[in-house]
Amino acid sequence: MRAEILSIGTELLLGQILDTNAQFLAQELPALGIDLFYVSHVGDNLGRLAEAIRRGLDRSDLVITTGGLGPTEDDLTREAIAEVMGEPLEVQPELERTLRAFFAQRGRAMPERNVKQATTIASGTFLPNPIGTAPGWWVERNGTVIASMPGVPHEMRQMWAEQVLPRLAARVGAGAIVSRTLKLIGIGESHAEEAVGDLIRSTNPTLATYAKNDGVHLRLTAKAATANEARALLDDFEPRVRERVGRWVYGDETASFPAVVGALLRERGLTLTTAESATGGHLAALVAEAPGASDYFLGGYVAYTRGAKERLGVPPEILDVHGTVAQETSAALASAARLQSGADVAIATTGVAGPSESESKPVGTLHFALDIGGETFVHSTSYSTTRAEFQRRGALEALTLLWQRLCTMPPRSAEQAGSTMGQRDAP
Amino acid sequence: MRAEILSIGTELLLGQILDTNAQFLAQELPALGIDLFYVSHVGDNLGRLAEAIRRGLDRSDLVITTGGLGPTEDDLTREAIAEVMGEPLEVQPELERTLRAFFAQRGRAMPERNVKQATTIASGTFLPNPIGTAPGWWVERNGTVIASMPGVPHEMRQMWAEQVLPRLAARVGAGAIVSRTLKLIGIGESHAEEAVGDLIRSTNPTLATYAKNDGVHLRLTAKAATANEARALLDDFEPRVRERVGRWVYGDETASFPAVVGALLRERGLTLTTAESATGGHLAALVAEAPGASDYFLGGYVAYTRGAKERLGVPPEILDVHGTVAQETSAALASAARLQSGADVAIATTGVAGPSESESKPVGTLHFALDIGGETFVHSTSYSTTRAEFQRRGALEALTLLWQRLCTMPPRSAEQAGSTMGQRDAP
Repeated sequence: MRAEILSIGTELLLGQILDTNAQFLAQELPALGIDLFYVSHVGDNLGRLAEAIRRGLDRSDLVITTGGLGPTEDDLTREAIAEVMGEPLEVQPELERTLRAFFAQRGRAMPERNVKQATTIASGTFLPNPIGTAPGWWVERNGTVIASMPGVPHEMRQMWAEQVLPRLAARVGAGAIVSRTLKLIGIGESHAEEAVGDLIRSTNPTLATYAKNDGVHLRLTAKAATANEARALLDDFEPRVRERVGRWVYGDETASFPAVVGALLRERGLTLTTAESATGGHLAALVAEAPGASDYFLGGYVAYTRGAKERLGVPPEILDVHGTVAQETSAALASAARLQSGADVAIATTGVAGPSESESKPVGTLHFALDIGGETFVHSTSYSTTRAEFQRRGALEALTLLWQRLCTMPPRSAEQAGSTMGQRDAP
Repeated sequence: MRAEILSIGTELLLGQILDTNAQFLAQELPALGIDLFYVSHVGDNLGRLAEAIRRGLDRSDLVITTGGLGPTEDDLTREAIAEVMGEPLEVQPELERTLRAFFAQRGRAMPERNVKQATTIASGTFLPNPIGTAPGWWVERNGTVIASMPGVPHEMRQMWAEQVLPRLAARVGAGAIVSRTLKLIGIGESHAEEAVGDLIRSTNPTLATYAKNDGVHLRLTAKAATANEARALLDDFEPRVRERVGRWVYGDETASFPAVVGALLRERGLTLTTAESATGGHLAALVAEAPGASDYFLGGYVAYTRGAKERLGVPPEILDVHGTVAQETSAALASAARLQSGADVAIATTGVAGPSESESKPVGTLHFALDIGGETFVHSTSYSTTRAEFQRRGALEALTLLWQRLCTMPPRSAEQAGSTMGQRDAP
């Protein structure tokens, strides 16, 4: 099946917004066995829009449009499809009632121009939009499909998942397509691809890797006659994937890395503090991203200067001998923060974020230390990147070190880790 | 002049990358008076690529392509243009020497397949690429132009600025186009638009607003016969813009907001600390984004729990009476952090990042406090947004409050602000 996407809206042609809808759909189509041949941005102009739809019907089996379904005069997707199909727009009373109810629920009267959102053509059916006022359209002509969805990304994604994807799956003969994501941390994309080995060439389920801000995502996708059969294929495939990369997997598509680390701390009854020099607050910010972080995150210190490190309790001798950027200094910073805060676990960072070197230590140097109930673990690395990316990646790697340690920590260690255990502050 | 953009590469159609090149170019064209009518993504397929170029030549006056100029078999932009033009590819000896020199400088031999990057056709001239191996092409046919640039964004942008933009400016009769950006903070995009009033409708120079992560950007663009004349137009226009929005302007296109605040602190000889509850480290991270922040940023505290606030020195009575989320608590937190750290200035935040309310205070509540040498300023607000966006925006607003205060502070206040002034730690 040959597909194309029409992303509709003058704001795209003015560069005011980025077309993330097309990227999302482009990632979804391969699992359906549908080949995407073209993506086009077209402005809010009836003639050019109709021309693009006509060309799409001629050269593709599936034309997906996003945008142009709003109630204003600029929203011309319905009009253009009607023109190409040579069919008049007709108000659907049932759809009009639904729309009016949508406004009534929000205590507002429906503006009359919104009535055009209740129209379809004879060859078309509408696709419900439970979270917005722009219903989609599904139109067929000689075996070719036009699927029109709103441009608002979250409305588009929900309509895709609930309405368009199932219809397309039925059409391409794959009764059901089921995907599952594993999120990995502490491994790069190319190493992850190497680690899964020949599974990357599996055709059903398929396996794809994506480098994201919160690690590497592995996407497993199975096709079968029914969703249950597709899930069974995944249930068989997933353990084979995990066998190879399990040590880096921190969760599925719903997992947030800071929340995963938080859950481990909570389970073990451990409280956490951070002491940052190189990462300048990014680590605390990352920890605090998890809802309910105040259960275990007592707080953190950004000890940016030598004086701030000393005030926190780092012995001046350590700073004299090793400088402010050193494994030893990170370790001392972690211990000082742990004692000062009363937390069970402390993570500390020192390093050179740049743009210039510091204490003759090159830009990119980074030293991590973990202090768990008095036991210290250190790790050093170096990044060749921008200052901002250095801080972001440093924070992620620091939290990764804690995660790895917590994962390998037998539950009994938690009990022995320190005397402050369980003496938590009220949030 | 009617333009279209062809973004070339199968990775776009697989959703592996987002087309930021098209967005960049879309933002550049209006200043040239060139109308962008279409953006299309085409895969690495000779037939479809040639078809898209042929259609572009038929319907547009300018076809800009990005991508497909690499040395591999998948890179087919040159081949497709040659096919459409009916002209053979010919190796340009001078260009071949430049390419070989590029590799030699990096101590590597040029792979032989790279020779195709040294080819052009009779109707074409190449556009130099000083920072990569893919030269661009400039091809003309019957008054229509094809401008081909590499897909690597920073290579494309440099070639655009140095090669394509000047040629197009000459062509459209604008001898020179000069742009200037003013960055604003503490004002939303629609209010900024309101504040500039009728200047938004000026045709030369033009004025455009963009909502960005570091505030609202105003872009002033002038066209004239020479660059000097265009600059003169801007020199006349800019004060009229500043007259209306000057109080929100923190810098030009090169300005980084944390660095601007840092420079003000440095000028006034003031040191800074942060004490965060609601923003969980984002504020410290923002402050530390400025290179050389250790000159004035002594460090910060993330006092996430009640206990952490008390340990920092917030009186328990304040917490008992007002709770952990309150103006009074933010003020006490700022004062405690200032005393504990020895800094001249402290910023503190308390609030409810969500997802659930806290102490019966609704999600989104945010209280800021600024303590400058013992003088306290408080401010409260509320956002209706996600937890992550709440923390990011809260940090930006906190730093904005400091910036506003520093801007209005007469230099003498700095001298009187406190006894710790100038007693800075070594970084």
